[in-house]
Amino acid sequence: MENSEKNFRDWSEIIAGLSPDERLDDLLCSGRRIIQNTKEFCFSLDAVLLAHYPRYKKHWRVFDLGTGTGVMPLLIADEVKEIHALEINPVMASLAKRNVVLNNLQEKIHVSEGDYRRIRELYPPESFDCVIANPPYRPVNQGQLNSLDGVARARHEVTATLQDVVKAARYLLRFRGRFAMVHLPERLGEIIVAMAENQIQVKRLQLVQPKPDKPSNLMLIEGVAGAAPGGMKAELPLIVHEADGSYTREILDIYNM
Amino acid sequence: MENSEKNFRDWSEIIAGLSPDERLDDLLCSGRRIIQNTKEFCFSLDAVLLAHYPRYKKHWRVFDLGTGTGVMPLLIADEVKEIHALEINPVMASLAKRNVVLNNLQEKIHVSEGDYRRIRELYPPESFDCVIANPPYRPVNQGQLNSLDGVARARHEVTATLQDVVKAARYLLRFRGRFAMVHLPERLGEIIVAMAENQIQVKRLQLVQPKPDKPSNLMLIEGVAGAAPGGMKAELPLIVHEADGSYTREILDIYNM
Repeated sequence: MENSEKNFRDWSEIIAGLSPDERLDDLLCSGRRIIQNTKEFCFSLDAVLLAHYPRYKKHWRVFDLGTGTGVMPLLIADEVKEIHALEINPVMASLAKRNVVLNNLQEKIHVSEGDYRRIRELYPPESFDCVIANPPYRPVNQGQLNSLDGVARARHEVTATLQDVVKAARYLLRFRGRFAMVHLPERLGEIIVAMAENQIQVKRLQLVQPKPDKPSNLMLIEGVAGAAPGGMKAELPLIVHEADGSYTREILDIYNM
Repeated sequence: MENSEKNFRDWSEIIAGLSPDERLDDLLCSGRRIIQNTKEFCFSLDAVLLAHYPRYKKHWRVFDLGTGTGVMPLLIADEVKEIHALEINPVMASLAKRNVVLNNLQEKIHVSEGDYRRIRELYPPESFDCVIANPPYRPVNQGQLNSLDGVARARHEVTATLQDVVKAARYLLRFRGRFAMVHLPERLGEIIVAMAENQIQVKRLQLVQPKPDKPSNLMLIEGVAGAAPGGMKAELPLIVHEADGSYTREILDIYNM
């Protein structure tokens, strides 16, 4: 379906209205665009890969835990019935809300500003078919904290730990609901244990390799709430770049290029 | 070092002495050979891959939990100081003992018949640097049990569960000792949880793919006893066959071919 007419915007006017730290990017998806703030965390390949990882059903209600500028909801809006998204950083939450309006998706995407450690006060339990999360990858005690506070919080577990995100996902998911994350392979053990502690069993794992001869530095992982252990599918690794540095066919397909 | 002189045997005499169900195979490793019983579980690629997975140190004492005919100890005898091996099936344990003598390795490899669920009665705690295990892959309630009893016990968790093998490994390992297994990717979640429950954290994972375009159906996994969580390396997948069905260079190297 060609959405460009429905989504027609006078982009030059939008661009003229951006504040100095903001930029407008084309999402290469149903004509959608996204405003990002260059002083805050900007989405990268990780979010795009995760957005396309679950096998959505049209009737699903999906939740994005820590949505940032709302990139994942914008990318999957055509694939599901409804998306709710939560973001703790007020600058990002406000951008995510603007991005929903900018793309005319107010009826499908619902962004709130809030802390998913208090998810019980914000949403009813077991009310979603799928939860996606691109959480901070590193514990606070590891690595240099980025001097820009919002960026630090997006990369390091300052405002929420792995436990917090898995717990929130479990609270939101219906029985047999899916929980998908993009994360670092180095934390696979902690993720699987945290999931199991919250009655989510790992069922799919896809390692992402930067090149055919480089080991994985990123992974996509999906669990099922209330499932029995066992039965995980280890999928073919997803290779990002060919040996010559160009994108692989698989990545170009994901980007609609 | 060329061991063929030291290991010289009149193989024709050995072959003449085999019982009707037994066969003698060349291990392609320091001139070693192995007697197997065709009515029992015969080792396969899995054991060879696991034997070569840990990065052994010459001074290490290694334990093989459920050694079968002793194939892994025979393969790694040159790489470590000492190997102890336990086997519950008396036919297999007896073969493993004969194989040690056959290859003149009595001073290095010590095989016992016994049940690793009673490991505490058999060996002192925390006395090994590395434990390897090629355990039964499937729960007893899953799949057709092989009609040959010994084969069933090698493939299904009849005499010991995943919990049992991990628990025995933890008992045997010194602080920071390595525990390596070959297993099915579908059970990754259960393995990581069982390891974590026994203070073993996953640190290395290598998915094994039958061909470049076929997803992994086997995996090599290594944990460290007493380590902090995190820091796992997801290694490049190990591909067994080229697209044309021939062995890959990596597999030929492992087999010394």
